[in-house]
Amino acid sequence: MPKLKPEEVEHRRQEIIDAARNCFLRSGFHQTTTDEICHEAAITPGGLYHYFGSKEEIISAVIEDAAHSTVKNLRSVAESQGDLRAAVQALASLFFRWARDPELDSVTRLDVEIWTETLRNEKLAQITRASRALRQQWLESLIRQAKSEGLYTEQVDPRGLANLIMAIFDGLRLSRLLWQDDFDVEGALQSLLLMQAGRLTNGTEFSPELPEMPAERRTASGST
Amino acid sequence: MPKLKPEEVEHRRQEIIDAARNCFLRSGFHQTTTDEICHEAAITPGGLYHYFGSKEEIISAVIEDAAHSTVKNLRSVAESQGDLRAAVQALASLFFRWARDPELDSVTRLDVEIWTETLRNEKLAQITRASRALRQQWLESLIRQAKSEGLYTEQVDPRGLANLIMAIFDGLRLSRLLWQDDFDVEGALQSLLLMQAGRLTNGTEFSPELPEMPAERRTASGST
Repeated sequence: MPKLKPEEVEHRRQEIIDAARNCFLRSGFHQTTTDEICHEAAITPGGLYHYFGSKEEIISAVIEDAAHSTVKNLRSVAESQGDLRAAVQALASLFFRWARDPELDSVTRLDVEIWTETLRNEKLAQITRASRALRQQWLESLIRQAKSEGLYTEQVDPRGLANLIMAIFDGLRLSRLLWQDDFDVEGALQSLLLMQAGRLTNGTEFSPELPEMPAERRTASGST
Repeated sequence: MPKLKPEEVEHRRQEIIDAARNCFLRSGFHQTTTDEICHEAAITPGGLYHYFGSKEEIISAVIEDAAHSTVKNLRSVAESQGDLRAAVQALASLFFRWARDPELDSVTRLDVEIWTETLRNEKLAQITRASRALRQQWLESLIRQAKSEGLYTEQVDPRGLANLIMAIFDGLRLSRLLWQDDFDVEGALQSLLLMQAGRLTNGTEFSPELPEMPAERRTASGST
């Protein structure tokens, strides 16, 4: 192994992560062999094991890297806008664009595989939870900021809304992948637009029993 | 095999399906052996194979049966109400109750396993798609009826809304299962209530680019 400078090591590590992600997206996590990753990254098995001890370490690095680059992307979309209102609108547009993008299917397919593995592998579960937390916290802090500028009502709980947005997004992309043409993504998105505008019902809201909120939450979120 | 009357055969078949579902919910589809199903159903392997040729046939029957009993349950909740408005409210309450019910986790865990299998097994995919279609069509027809009685606005597309409600429900229960205490289900549900009431934002709606709708859909759903 030739001596590499720290930035060269970091660069090579990133190349391997990118190559591994390509393989996983193409063939799935279980189907991909380390040989394929070596081929894609143009590295020998000996070289690969200098960076990652096992395929599990590689998938962990891919998951962590994906979370960081998602947050980086979202932040750069938000920061390229003139103000917070424009940033929130740009992110909402991105939500709609991604929900309809067929190219997202391969990502969702890999995520389903990772979720299944998460349910039986506690070590991987910790990685996926931490990666999700990173995304959630970024979104939550954006919503908190938008709320402080009056873009959201006093009743909005930033953590709850961030959780809801992520759950809806996962529900939409999962449905797209699983049910294909049976899932009417355009109709669902149109309904989501009507829903957030309060225009589903004719001025007569449905009032399912309100979730029971712990007292401190009820106070903190300012709802009644 | 003693001669059984058709209703006895049907009864026994249902008992096996119920027993198999219990096993699958407890141990997962892959971990469950036919021996365990036989034990739970108090039947011999020979007896079992008179009803089902393989474990895959059993999981197919369990999936179909679950779809039929969900629709039966929902219909009975709806029909026990005085009118359609009360029926829709009762179903909305059920949505919230189920989304918070920890007992749903074992069902979702099995569903994740079935979804993963659905992605690589076309035969099973047909069963899960048909079972989902059964639920979706029932919900769609209820929304259509409610719309005709003026409970929903003219802009609402019953198919799109049914798809959205099911996707949100799957997103919520999947997030609960995967992220456990990291997922704030109460906060998410409270945000969903605010969202459907149009009370997330301060009178200033976000307007992400509207989904492109095919012309006939735009006309059919009456939206602009």
